[in-house]
Amino acid sequence: MTSLASTPPADIASYVPEPIAGDFLNKHIVTVGQFSRTDLEQLFAAASSLRTRVRQRDRGVGEIAAGTVMSLLFFESSTRTDLSFQAAMRRLGGEVVGVSNGIQFSSTYKGEDLHDTVRAAGCYADVITLRHPEAGASMLAAKYLDQLAEKIGRRPVVISAGDGIGEHPTQALLDLYTIFDLGGSLDGRAIAMVGDLKHGRTVHSLARLIHACAPSGTALNLISPDCLRMPPEIVELCRGADIAVLETDQIAAALASSDIIYWTRVQEERFADIASYDRIKDDFVMTPELLQTCLPNALLMHPLPRKHEMGTRDDHDLLDADPRSVYFQQMENGMFMRMALLAKVLRGAHV
Amino acid sequence: MTSLASTPPADIASYVPEPIAGDFLNKHIVTVGQFSRTDLEQLFAAASSLRTRVRQRDRGVGEIAAGTVMSLLFFESSTRTDLSFQAAMRRLGGEVVGVSNGIQFSSTYKGEDLHDTVRAAGCYADVITLRHPEAGASMLAAKYLDQLAEKIGRRPVVISAGDGIGEHPTQALLDLYTIFDLGGSLDGRAIAMVGDLKHGRTVHSLARLIHACAPSGTALNLISPDCLRMPPEIVELCRGADIAVLETDQIAAALASSDIIYWTRVQEERFADIASYDRIKDDFVMTPELLQTCLPNALLMHPLPRKHEMGTRDDHDLLDADPRSVYFQQMENGMFMRMALLAKVLRGAHV
Amino acid sequence: MTSLASTPPADIASYVPEPIAGDFLNKHIVTVGQFSRTDLEQLFAAASSLRTRVRQRDRGVGEIAAGTVMSLLFFESSTRTDLSFQAAMRRLGGEVVGVSNGIQFSSTYKGEDLHDTVRAAGCYADVITLRHPEAGASMLAAKYLDQLAEKIGRRPVVISAGDGIGEHPTQALLDLYTIFDLGGSLDGRAIAMVGDLKHGRTVHSLARLIHACAPSGTALNLISPDCLRMPPEIVELCRGADIAVLETDQIAAALASSDIIYWTRVQEERFADIASYDRIKDDFVMTPELLQTCLPNALLMHPLPRKHEMGTRDDHDLLDADPRSVYFQQMENGMFMRMALLAKVLRGAHV
Repeated sequence: MTSLASTPPADIASYVPEPIAGDFLNKHIVTVGQFSRTDLEQLFAAASSLRTRVRQRDRGVGEIAAGTVMSLLFFESSTRTDLSFQAAMRRLGGEVVGVSNGIQFSSTYKGEDLHDTVRAAGCYADVITLRHPEAGASMLAAKYLDQLAEKIGRRPVVISAGDGIGEHPTQALLDLYTIFDLGGSLDGRAIAMVGDLKHGRTVHSLARLIHACAPSGTALNLISPDCLRMPPEIVELCRGADIAVLETDQIAAALASSDIIYWTRVQEERFADIASYDRIKDDFVMTPELLQTCLPNALLMHPLPRKHEMGTRDDHDLLDADPRSVYFQQMENGMFMRMALLAKVLRGAHV
Repeated sequence: MTSLASTPPADIASYVPEPIAGDFLNKHIVTVGQFSRTDLEQLFAAASSLRTRVRQRDRGVGEIAAGTVMSLLFFESSTRTDLSFQAAMRRLGGEVVGVSNGIQFSSTYKGEDLHDTVRAAGCYADVITLRHPEAGASMLAAKYLDQLAEKIGRRPVVISAGDGIGEHPTQALLDLYTIFDLGGSLDGRAIAMVGDLKHGRTVHSLARLIHACAPSGTALNLISPDCLRMPPEIVELCRGADIAVLETDQIAAALASSDIIYWTRVQEERFADIASYDRIKDDFVMTPELLQTCLPNALLMHPLPRKHEMGTRDDHDLLDADPRSVYFQQMENGMFMRMALLAKVLRGAHV
Repeated sequence: MTSLASTPPADIASYVPEPIAGDFLNKHIVTVGQFSRTDLEQLFAAASSLRTRVRQRDRGVGEIAAGTVMSLLFFESSTRTDLSFQAAMRRLGGEVVGVSNGIQFSSTYKGEDLHDTVRAAGCYADVITLRHPEAGASMLAAKYLDQLAEKIGRRPVVISAGDGIGEHPTQALLDLYTIFDLGGSLDGRAIAMVGDLKHGRTVHSLARLIHACAPSGTALNLISPDCLRMPPEIVELCRGADIAVLETDQIAAALASSDIIYWTRVQEERFADIASYDRIKDDFVMTPELLQTCLPNALLMHPLPRKHEMGTRDDHDLLDADPRSVYFQQMENGMFMRMALLAKVLRGAHV
């Protein structure tokens, strides 16, 4: 995929994705910046409705995307996102196509560029789910699909499934959906985000979506090592919307008052020296003991996969048994939210 | 997949899978020990019925699993098992999702454990087909899916597609189905198993299933090098059910009276020294000449893939042309048996 | 895949694929030599009809291949061909199965031969799409599927998706379809083929198909470096059908009178020495400037993927914007042509 290194960021800077503004039909989904509070409410209502219908084995669900095709373009692996998008499309009755031997082989082999690969997929499919290691790849894909439309008379759309250190908008959407779904509301709630808040794309996008909701009486407890704090522009953005932001490295104290706890990993390679990492590494681990100190009706979320930041395998088992741990419900919600998104993008349906 | 090496066998020892006992609905399928003779008869009748309906292009077959989703989790490749499960689910009208770039990449890349991966798949799917290089992985998956059920309010099930030196239950089921289907009955038949009977999981499982059928007048001719004999506990098990067991390394003599011949490979690396292997290696090869010495209505089976244990490529062609060779029918039966299993597990249907 | 090296070419030489002769039902598709002009006209009419019906969202299209299964056997990657065949089968309502982790792993791992793998797929599927790095693999597959039919009582068919330096018949079919579709006719047209005409399987097959159409007043402008000229037997074949053939290395002059321009790559490794390559390499690049010198209603085609033979990434963008560039329409046509082929092979339908 060395050929992709030649992609000039200039290509992307010029691309402005359309806001949803109440109408999802045939729109690329490449950034959380496209969503207003109303858009989110519509999307989440659709996700809950689809969940109910799936559980009731409503056969009409399988008609929603009938006759449409999704192409997977995963330039890197992501088990959960991949399976979740496929299951979402299939449950809607849509078709899914992907590259049999993995796309890495194909691209390395022939030195093919993203700009032609995405248009090839666009020739065969109505929607492309793109996962790519480079930031901006989704915007670039959107731009080239717009150009393709002039050739083939219809515009296939791209949905970002994560592009490098860029965005992973559907992860943020499912995270926020889970907060609304299991927490009831953002208003008056204290939301903790824990871990590497400097580099974590999921916490950045989630904070931006919370801001977009303009909630009332909401607090954000941003818990990180000092060198891994949330970027100041996001902090300022939230404060400008009357969200009470606390930045701290005192985990236990901040967790004690948090209704929602969003846990992420702190990676050793982000630290200037091993001593700095060693000083904090044991603190940024969620353990069964730490969870005991949290509010009895708190929600513990995690984007998964998890490693040492949730302790040992035995710790995992103990955490999983706690009713406050909702990361599996969060994972399942990912499928329902993606069903809602696909339904609205492909059919504009009021599902 | 180094992370999986940490799986303590203790996790599995404590898990007891449910016997089928006449009811397949929503049960994990992880060992041949779950099946009674009645269960097997029901399953095989369903397989034959589905085969007839597929050949008649009965459109109702495609309704049986409509609205359900199978997730493939293949941690190692297995062309036949993989394609066969997919074709089985699709022909029943069910949906199939899998990891686009192969799951090995994903796991290696992120160090994800089986226990979370299988629950991710469980969040999206109704049934998981698991292939894994480590023995006990299927039991472990069953245990964690049971735990997931407490979170998401429904229990996805796992069907083992082979776990290392552990079991490969659907292979044994399709083997036995083929014996019933093409051989008519186990009663009064002499069944030869040839090759490495010490390490071969397929012959172990098949012998256990034959025992579960409590046939009458059946003989087992166990033909192997002396150092690769069937484990004594399986031999005792069969003898305890009045099955006449002969253990021998005299291939031609034992084959001459065998109605069913189940051929497998003897691998060089199983021998203490090359001289021991060289002494027997040419004997444990099925050739067109050897097949000529067998009963005219014998059935020659093989789980495939095959290599030197069936001689050269030209030997393959000659063996294939012999009507006694039924390994391709055996392979096709694998799909129909898996259709029956999926139908019963997902719908409990009397198909 | 070292085991495949042992495939003796003798196996293939003896296999004669059936001509279509007006009836596609249940025939292997392995060479352009199977098609007459009438067959091509029927196929192209079906492709156009299916395209119209897909664009009108005609739900009947999804019934054409319902109840049938296609197995992908891609022994090497090919993003476009792979996605295109999958989308074609899915849009017809047929099912698609493939090897989860990529077939290369499986084969390398177990040393399995093509002759057994293709029959395994044949046991589960009605049609096999085979991509293989070795010439003749498709013929070999056809031969072994014919043998399988004697065992299982039905004959699955293979469609070649390219085998090494052998043929890639569906590429040639979609190329010719695009010439008819966008160019209207072959009669009286000048068709330029540019690049490595000695080794390029696409130009060989396309020239053979053009010959099969016995057009009137057609000219072939074969533009290549002198050392990479079209094989003389193909040149003679075309001349024998009253096609005016010009062989030249003067690109600009030959392009100036060409209605259809089929561009392909010249690879450095085909030259005896680097000096010979350096002497011609800049000439065999299609640039926006060169395209300006072509006829205003010329059609620029390319089988894709493309690299330096269409200049820089900025050149790509400029070429793409020119209405004469039809390689994306050509790519989309590939799906519709494959839909037509699958419909006719699986159902014999007058679609």
